[in-house]
Amino acid sequence: MPADEADVVVVGAGLAGLTAAREIVAAGREVVVLEARDRVGGRVLNHPIGDGKVVEVGGQWIGPGQDRIATLAKELGVETFPTYDTGRNVLCFGKKTSTYSGTIPRINPIVLADVGRAQAAINRLARRVPLEAPWQAEHAERWDGQTFETWLHKAARTRVGRELVRLGIEAVFACEPVEVSLLHVLFYVHSAGTFELLVDTDGGAQQDRFVGGSQVVTERMAADLGGRVRVDTPVRYLRHGGEIVEVVSDRTAVKARRAIVSVPPALAGRITYDPPLPGHRDQLTQKAPMGSVIKCHAFYDAPFWRDDGLSGQATGDGPGVKVTFDNSPPDGSPGVLLGFLEGDEARRLSRVPAPERRRAVIDSFVRFFGPRAAEPRDYVELDWSQEEWTRGCYGAHFAPGVWTRYGDALREPIGPIHWAGTETATEWGGYMDGAVQSGQRAAAEVLASLA
Amino acid sequence: MPADEADVVVVGAGLAGLTAAREIVAAGREVVVLEARDRVGGRVLNHPIGDGKVVEVGGQWIGPGQDRIATLAKELGVETFPTYDTGRNVLCFGKKTSTYSGTIPRINPIVLADVGRAQAAINRLARRVPLEAPWQAEHAERWDGQTFETWLHKAARTRVGRELVRLGIEAVFACEPVEVSLLHVLFYVHSAGTFELLVDTDGGAQQDRFVGGSQVVTERMAADLGGRVRVDTPVRYLRHGGEIVEVVSDRTAVKARRAIVSVPPALAGRITYDPPLPGHRDQLTQKAPMGSVIKCHAFYDAPFWRDDGLSGQATGDGPGVKVTFDNSPPDGSPGVLLGFLEGDEARRLSRVPAPERRRAVIDSFVRFFGPRAAEPRDYVELDWSQEEWTRGCYGAHFAPGVWTRYGDALREPIGPIHWAGTETATEWGGYMDGAVQSGQRAAAEVLASLA
Repeated sequence: MPADEADVVVVGAGLAGLTAAREIVAAGREVVVLEARDRVGGRVLNHPIGDGKVVEVGGQWIGPGQDRIATLAKELGVETFPTYDTGRNVLCFGKKTSTYSGTIPRINPIVLADVGRAQAAINRLARRVPLEAPWQAEHAERWDGQTFETWLHKAARTRVGRELVRLGIEAVFACEPVEVSLLHVLFYVHSAGTFELLVDTDGGAQQDRFVGGSQVVTERMAADLGGRVRVDTPVRYLRHGGEIVEVVSDRTAVKARRAIVSVPPALAGRITYDPPLPGHRDQLTQKAPMGSVIKCHAFYDAPFWRDDGLSGQATGDGPGVKVTFDNSPPDGSPGVLLGFLEGDEARRLSRVPAPERRRAVIDSFVRFFGPRAAEPRDYVELDWSQEEWTRGCYGAHFAPGVWTRYGDALREPIGPIHWAGTETATEWGGYMDGAVQSGQRAAAEVLASLA
Repeated sequence: MPADEADVVVVGAGLAGLTAAREIVAAGREVVVLEARDRVGGRVLNHPIGDGKVVEVGGQWIGPGQDRIATLAKELGVETFPTYDTGRNVLCFGKKTSTYSGTIPRINPIVLADVGRAQAAINRLARRVPLEAPWQAEHAERWDGQTFETWLHKAARTRVGRELVRLGIEAVFACEPVEVSLLHVLFYVHSAGTFELLVDTDGGAQQDRFVGGSQVVTERMAADLGGRVRVDTPVRYLRHGGEIVEVVSDRTAVKARRAIVSVPPALAGRITYDPPLPGHRDQLTQKAPMGSVIKCHAFYDAPFWRDDGLSGQATGDGPGVKVTFDNSPPDGSPGVLLGFLEGDEARRLSRVPAPERRRAVIDSFVRFFGPRAAEPRDYVELDWSQEEWTRGCYGAHFAPGVWTRYGDALREPIGPIHWAGTETATEWGGYMDGAVQSGQRAAAEVLASLA
């Protein structure tokens, strides 16, 4: 197979890989981007719903403090609009349903204080985790030696309080509090700012949306890069030595001086490296599993919940969907309810027939928003664990012992191989903003080493 | 590439894969075994030391209750001999060195009672874990929701007592107590019998050795299988559908009606499946990391420690080697000290230059056995994390939340694909005996489905 040549070859045309390629071209170097799928965007994916409108079945929101993705979108001419956030939110817990305005539900004040204390403790401890090196936190060994669940049992005293915090963890990590270490949660919270920033809509990470859908950002980058981006080219082998790296996909081979691998660590571990990667790096790829989430949309003629004074945002203890949003297009037509199946519920419902899963989701919407939710005119879902080239969303999560034992392998280059992807970010890790940061950082590493 | 045909294709020629192939042939079915390495044996590997003698740089011991590997070895004419276990054992803790006979060290009786209580508790809880379905234990959620370290902090009250139990965990799992859930430890202990069975020499899992080295068992099976076993054929793709499976390696392709994948889950996840595996099974492969161990041998003209009345068995709190054995050939010539670097020490010393690692190991031997250990005539080590076709030993370990969320995916066939390997065993999981059990079980599944 005759090999293309470039200064840098990038594996993966998600936000991180495309951002890296864009920076490399801007610096006057040649780049080729190899993408396994037949499209760019990675975990960012538009789904057309007619009339030129879309919903996003992958990452979609942008919030305050996410300056890198904001700047990038602005450069590319992609506008934002606010997530629908008018009206009262719904809380369904046990057999009780209530509504509330703002971010604080009307629940038992003892529970409320309990949750507040736990959140404050998370924020306080999170600030003590160095973002560049979480394993160097003063109490890293203790914080990484226990599950978040273990910590929560001491930090929150009420059963319902713990359940509410667990809902927040599921919503942010798409896994259960038993699956992550306290240190991982603290790192993640610090990398965003505060726990509230992660979970809030107005003033938080769910504040705004992209006009035309978030994938437009990656599509415009890909358009600018032109023929440098090759889709349908899953990378299988990466041969490297000194100043030469050769990346071989099913259909093409590229020779370059540096490689940037921008796929999540678990998938990076599935590429065959020659020579094989050092054990330390390889074992990191064995310890960075992806979360479990199915993103589900139901479409209605109109956003009927708005008539009821509801925002479309609901939280509940399940079964089924535990978090919802109004994900209608800017003009409110059609009305779109977005529900997430996350962690255990994603895993349970991933394995039932599609009609049963749809029914579980719609039942949840009915529970939150009443019988008018029962008959959507359409339904669209994406189970990211089934996607061969992602294998879970939103991102990787780290079990106890991983940050302290393998965190230093996340970004450390191996010869000419550099690592990008939102999992390697120090700010907004796991988010689109973190993906952009990681692409910029990897490009800077590569450009400096080529200079 | 023209495809070979067989009833069953087996991926991996370790103990599990070869055992499966042997059973399939015995049942009158045709089988082809594809092995990535240039040798059979997998995690079982002899290292010749001259005069027809060997040491094993992989799995080596057999103990009471391991009836499957015992029967197999007997069928193949492989004899056993007792691990050298005469004399006093050495304990180095803090700055203190002491010796003791039997299995109970001479330490502070309060610490001893503390360790005894913790071990008894482990054994008592372990019996309540169903071996076929650990996730169905009455307290599975609680036991799988915490790290073993978290549990240990409550179960053992003395600092040194906890440190001794941690040494046992490192020795058995080749990782730290923060990396595994309590449920994982309990399953593993129950699958062997008791904690003492796992860590003891006489009467335990280190009781006996194989004449000629454990790899002879796999070599004789491979010899019986003849041309059915193909080495140097790393499997890259596995296409499957209904009653057909096609396995493609770099050099050959095999068509069969069933496949048995006998490599550890993490490596099974690196094969490309077409159609792709269900998300649930794929995510299991993201959550089954291998342990970290470097097995180190130092060779001396004679086993000088025996002259001092020492067994060659030592335990200490590090740095470097924390567990040693006399691994001399049956005739005691040369004298061989075996030391394990496990968990954190394996990871730390995996990344230093080889001479520095060797020095750390020899320094440990000197600490345990005195200055005569300082000048071995030879030194041999194997860092299993660097082995491309294993990527860690002794086996996979499960972090909190994995058994309860993904345990049911360990053995569940996917269409014509069946799973073997010691990680899938219900008895002596992680040991050679478990590998044999898994091969027998997978072969039985396949034969039943072909009948």
